[in-house]
Amino acid sequence: MRTAEVIAVGSEMLGSTRTDTNSLYVAERLSEIGIDVHVKDIVGDEREDLAAVFRLALDRVDLVVLTGGLGPTDDDLTREVVAEVLDLPMSIDETIVDKIRARFERRGLTMPEVNRRQAQVPRGARVLDNPNGTAPGLLIEIEHDGARGRQAIVLLPGPPREMKPMLDRLCTGRLASLAGGERTFRTSLYLTGLGESHVEQKVQPIYSRWRDRTPPISTTILAAMGQIELHLSERDTDETRGRATLARAKDELMEVVGEYVYSTDGRTMEEVAGDLLKARGLTIATAESCTGGLLLSRLTDVPGSSAYVRGGIVAYANDEKTSLLGVPADLIAAHGAVSEPVAVAMAEGIRERTGADVAVGITGIAGPGGGTPEKPVGTVVIAVIVPGHPAYVRTYQFLGGRAMVKFQATQAAMDRVRRMM
Amino acid sequence: MRTAEVIAVGSEMLGSTRTDTNSLYVAERLSEIGIDVHVKDIVGDEREDLAAVFRLALDRVDLVVLTGGLGPTDDDLTREVVAEVLDLPMSIDETIVDKIRARFERRGLTMPEVNRRQAQVPRGARVLDNPNGTAPGLLIEIEHDGARGRQAIVLLPGPPREMKPMLDRLCTGRLASLAGGERTFRTSLYLTGLGESHVEQKVQPIYSRWRDRTPPISTTILAAMGQIELHLSERDTDETRGRATLARAKDELMEVVGEYVYSTDGRTMEEVAGDLLKARGLTIATAESCTGGLLLSRLTDVPGSSAYVRGGIVAYANDEKTSLLGVPADLIAAHGAVSEPVAVAMAEGIRERTGADVAVGITGIAGPGGGTPEKPVGTVVIAVIVPGHPAYVRTYQFLGGRAMVKFQATQAAMDRVRRMM
Repeated sequence: MRTAEVIAVGSEMLGSTRTDTNSLYVAERLSEIGIDVHVKDIVGDEREDLAAVFRLALDRVDLVVLTGGLGPTDDDLTREVVAEVLDLPMSIDETIVDKIRARFERRGLTMPEVNRRQAQVPRGARVLDNPNGTAPGLLIEIEHDGARGRQAIVLLPGPPREMKPMLDRLCTGRLASLAGGERTFRTSLYLTGLGESHVEQKVQPIYSRWRDRTPPISTTILAAMGQIELHLSERDTDETRGRATLARAKDELMEVVGEYVYSTDGRTMEEVAGDLLKARGLTIATAESCTGGLLLSRLTDVPGSSAYVRGGIVAYANDEKTSLLGVPADLIAAHGAVSEPVAVAMAEGIRERTGADVAVGITGIAGPGGGTPEKPVGTVVIAVIVPGHPAYVRTYQFLGGRAMVKFQATQAAMDRVRRMM
Repeated sequence: MRTAEVIAVGSEMLGSTRTDTNSLYVAERLSEIGIDVHVKDIVGDEREDLAAVFRLALDRVDLVVLTGGLGPTDDDLTREVVAEVLDLPMSIDETIVDKIRARFERRGLTMPEVNRRQAQVPRGARVLDNPNGTAPGLLIEIEHDGARGRQAIVLLPGPPREMKPMLDRLCTGRLASLAGGERTFRTSLYLTGLGESHVEQKVQPIYSRWRDRTPPISTTILAAMGQIELHLSERDTDETRGRATLARAKDELMEVVGEYVYSTDGRTMEEVAGDLLKARGLTIATAESCTGGLLLSRLTDVPGSSAYVRGGIVAYANDEKTSLLGVPADLIAAHGAVSEPVAVAMAEGIRERTGADVAVGITGIAGPGGGTPEKPVGTVVIAVIVPGHPAYVRTYQFLGGRAMVKFQATQAAMDRVRRMM
């Protein structure tokens, strides 16, 4: 079983406001057991559309995963349409009815009669328990004569908190054995401070060799706001060997881009910086201008950050830099508010006022207005003071709109804190 | 032409990290000209998969929109597969080649030979200009004998900045006339400060009547972080009548939920608050604790906000509330850091230190740690000082995780600023 199609059922996903996201999770889980998603579909609560799309999927792939449409109302057609297309009679499974009824009773409610629909089971289907909701899932296996081999159809509820644990159990259980033992192993590197094409230039000579090895390691480079992600994956039947191969591959990449890598375990930049501060018993405070508080807001997005975040001052107006942070007015007059001496004075000012060990000063032009030929939009000066180091200051030139400039500036500031520790 | 299917082409959308979002825009634009999307598909760069999905779409809908796969490389199959399935011969359109070549030359580059592929045009197709990229779009119309009528196939580039303007032109031009004159009109209300079920309770008696009128007005209630959205839409052949109907409908809703509505034109809360400050010539400053700078960061997300944002202090640690904001230590000792007197003192402190007209103080427990039985996680106190009003202070109880609590607190604070002005 190698190929899959994922069908998300629900009219609300055909409009302009919501789309299917369950399939991202389904694709990841299936790929871990060596099954590739070939097509994804989103179908409304319409019998004919769903039947047509499901039939086409059955013609082409080994595994069809349907999410949604298992509710108790007339709109919820997935069970019925699947049974109809596969020509399987359905009957009520009273043990399911009992479970649904018990679920209602635990909350002091009586089960509405319509919920009996959720206990309909096509002949031969395996019922998948749903601890987080009323709709059970279903697994149907079909044995074909001839070359076609075995096919499987999985019906999962739409709400992610019901769908995910059900799929998890399937992917370590029955689906894994149907898939045939080969698994996909993955590892990721998160970089900042280097553009996509420069990352590509450095890592391409390495990953291009990986394509020819057996089994090959595949590499994806994704550019996101303020960071580049390198995703490696490899298929192997042996877990120890698979993980060792990827670990060696990661080491090879670290040799050429290691200094730009801030995370290899999925932690965000604010978590990485926070963990370093916590480990060293240091506190931090920030003096921001163009980032408007975003740096401190990101630092405090981490639960437990009150252990190391002292506080910060956002001196958005120029004279606030003087009155709140003690930046000398003549320093601003001489160099301009967006200048290295002012950024350093901001960092020093916040360190003095809060007694924090580590201090950051950021001043710049987030745009769209305020740029000059010498200091165009995107010019940001970042100063970082870390105990035992000379004060660091650098002028950056970021690209993109206001939100991009703000985010990249906070990313660069935290990365500098990370590097200096 | 009433029904459509949208096919997004690209293997990168089949994994676990990216999904198609173009179709949200396509669905919105098509619905405005009265065309409903029935099915959406995501297909990898595989000839057979794409051909099968495209064939099924042709069997079922009036309009097939394909996005992506129009690039110059071997991976880019959309043009070829569509021509093959429709059995249309393709030929190079030299005027397209010239345009692509000129595009490269403007950047001092020579056009790579592979880009000639992008000038392939199936016989009878209309070429859609692409001012933002090299790949032109294509519109193919098919006249069927008998009851089937006319069908249209649209090929659009994948990058949103190339796809959107091309689709916009089609939807006011050829597609609009194929669609037959009925259009969809929309209006939206954005509310905060009232939960989804309370909004539902207030508006349900109104919108349930709209279902029975001719033509009906359809209403969707969406709950997003810190806000509820009410989307109304109606189909009409007459623009003046359509817009008037919706304006009256909006007025009816405003009568029952008006005080919670902060925007009816799509502006964000920070834009609404900012516009009010600007209009009244007032400045603002913030004193934040649990929101960690998010309030000021959101206020400064608005271009031009430097005209009214003075700055702010994030006093995350308790003694910073005293040293940076001048909140008396005995006030904190007497009432706790999360208390109404402290929130007011924070607002007063920042107003004094910055000379701002409007001041906000926020203190609370964002979680997951720090809650007590009296002040559980999600307890947030907000104080707002606006000239000519007594100081406002209120204790809120927000639900959700850390990010939710932070966001809702900033939303409630800005909403209070809005209401007091």
